[in-house]
Amino acid sequence: MGAGSWGTTVAKLLCDAGGEVTLWGRRAPVVEAVNERHENADYLPGVELPAGLRATTDPAEALAGADFVALAVPAQTLRENLAAWVPLLPPESVLVSLMKGVELGTCRRMSEVIGEVADVPAERVAVFSGPNLAREIAAGQPGAAVSACADEDAARRLQSATMTPYFRVYTSTDVVGVELGGAVKNIVALCVGMAVGLGFGDNTRALLMTRGLAEIARLGAALGADEHTFAGLAGMGDLIGTCSSPLSRNRTFGENLGRGMTLEQVVAVTKQTAEGVKSSGAVHELARKHNVEMPITEAVVQVLYEGVPIADAASALISRSPKPERYGL
Amino acid sequence: MGAGSWGTTVAKLLCDAGGEVTLWGRRAPVVEAVNERHENADYLPGVELPAGLRATTDPAEALAGADFVALAVPAQTLRENLAAWVPLLPPESVLVSLMKGVELGTCRRMSEVIGEVADVPAERVAVFSGPNLAREIAAGQPGAAVSACADEDAARRLQSATMTPYFRVYTSTDVVGVELGGAVKNIVALCVGMAVGLGFGDNTRALLMTRGLAEIARLGAALGADEHTFAGLAGMGDLIGTCSSPLSRNRTFGENLGRGMTLEQVVAVTKQTAEGVKSSGAVHELARKHNVEMPITEAVVQVLYEGVPIADAASALISRSPKPERYGL
Repeated sequence: MGAGSWGTTVAKLLCDAGGEVTLWGRRAPVVEAVNERHENADYLPGVELPAGLRATTDPAEALAGADFVALAVPAQTLRENLAAWVPLLPPESVLVSLMKGVELGTCRRMSEVIGEVADVPAERVAVFSGPNLAREIAAGQPGAAVSACADEDAARRLQSATMTPYFRVYTSTDVVGVELGGAVKNIVALCVGMAVGLGFGDNTRALLMTRGLAEIARLGAALGADEHTFAGLAGMGDLIGTCSSPLSRNRTFGENLGRGMTLEQVVAVTKQTAEGVKSSGAVHELARKHNVEMPITEAVVQVLYEGVPIADAASALISRSPKPERYGL
Repeated sequence: MGAGSWGTTVAKLLCDAGGEVTLWGRRAPVVEAVNERHENADYLPGVELPAGLRATTDPAEALAGADFVALAVPAQTLRENLAAWVPLLPPESVLVSLMKGVELGTCRRMSEVIGEVADVPAERVAVFSGPNLAREIAAGQPGAAVSACADEDAARRLQSATMTPYFRVYTSTDVVGVELGGAVKNIVALCVGMAVGLGFGDNTRALLMTRGLAEIARLGAALGADEHTFAGLAGMGDLIGTCSSPLSRNRTFGENLGRGMTLEQVVAVTKQTAEGVKSSGAVHELARKHNVEMPITEAVVQVLYEGVPIADAASALISRSPKPERYGL
């Protein structure tokens, strides 16, 4: 449900793994192009989609008889979209979140919104996450993801439905951990971007990613996640993918700030919103509520919302008190 | 002890943290340049070293009265070098390994070689490791490392002796884990290089680093390390630093193989040896001995030593049987 780049890519994976797939898209021209020319030129230009992949603008047609309902709409529109689809959901279907983000206002994770709106038990909600630079995966480059569900059997069925000769899928039962990595990584990507903008190199970037993951793991532990999940594909893997790619909107946003542009200037040149800018406030609040130290998130919030100069935030970060590597866990 | 790029950089850190430091170097011209022009043009061109940093070619002078003896000679020469210095070691000094690698023939880690040759207890052997692209740290860019010693107090003293306004140090008591990350990362870097050479992008790289770290953690657990250490600076951090930097010898070696050069051709164009080429055999042997699955290391060994074409090794990797994300731990 959603014909953006990641939704379309996962539809392709499901097809390539041998499934029968109907892709729902909001816009008729996109849907027609998928059906007639087997391409989604807006989001995956140059990628030939499987001939067997059908698309439709009719949610009832897309949802009829589905074993898996993969949700790939923008995070902040999930609640409204899903509410309209609830009456159409097949009773045994597993709802799979492909989204990354935290709902503003409620601070809820996507799987929580799904469970609440569709009123289904945790056994019917799964999360599919990992490093997913959609274009590379859609092009058939080797990739991987984690299929997580409280019901291990459902996680395994989703694994079977998505594994292809170019894509590996691993199972997990830690929904919270798998989801949180994707939701918080964009804040770290903003910070890595700032460091790049300030002129720092690969070493500082590696340091920020590692300590960024450490604070995500601390938050995760407070929320009941399994700490080990963060060392996996949906934690470390997704973080590296996002922070390495010069195409990442969040990294670019931070880079422009680091180069000395004002927040207003950066917002003006950024076409789509950088997710981390929105979610940093919510994550910071979550951290405070659970008494978790998240110095990198705090530095990003200070720069974005409290007018603290980047150089000051950076030196505050590096001059924190000496610590053991592992604390707060 | 050792005036290469990393040895010189750590000497600078120790000075900048307020210590009195004598750097031992084998070659007189390097030592003279450090003393007279405050530079090490061979290894850190353009970096101004602290005026207070003294250098000498006389090991007795360097070792006299030292609290910390930081060892930064090539991994395969440690045994011989250290044997000559043992009579000169101050009785209470802590021996700090700055080296990354496994001793060929014995499969021993550097701290094991130190303990054996100097005949000192574990409380006097420390390891200092993290993402260390020496040039960036020597240039004063933000960086970090882990100071690990079985004696937590010694780890903390080393932390105090190396923390500066641009460099953070975290403590750990997991010597095995901190050391193993640095020793095995080069094999993953070889594999990442091969993927880059084959034309794969950031997504495949993120996947290989993450699953590479998972297999290092499996080996670590079998050797008594704390699995969490691998998610830290000496594991994930060092791995990202090495795999991201286009300057990494191991990555470049793999890249040339991926582009279709034969092993002989790559060896011919590689000036210094790529450490991972040497250590992959030893690590593979260790893994077999401890019954640990290390598919990426195995693929690298097959390509380097068994004439398996890269494309075959890659498709064997991606088509392994479906698994939970966390196994063998």
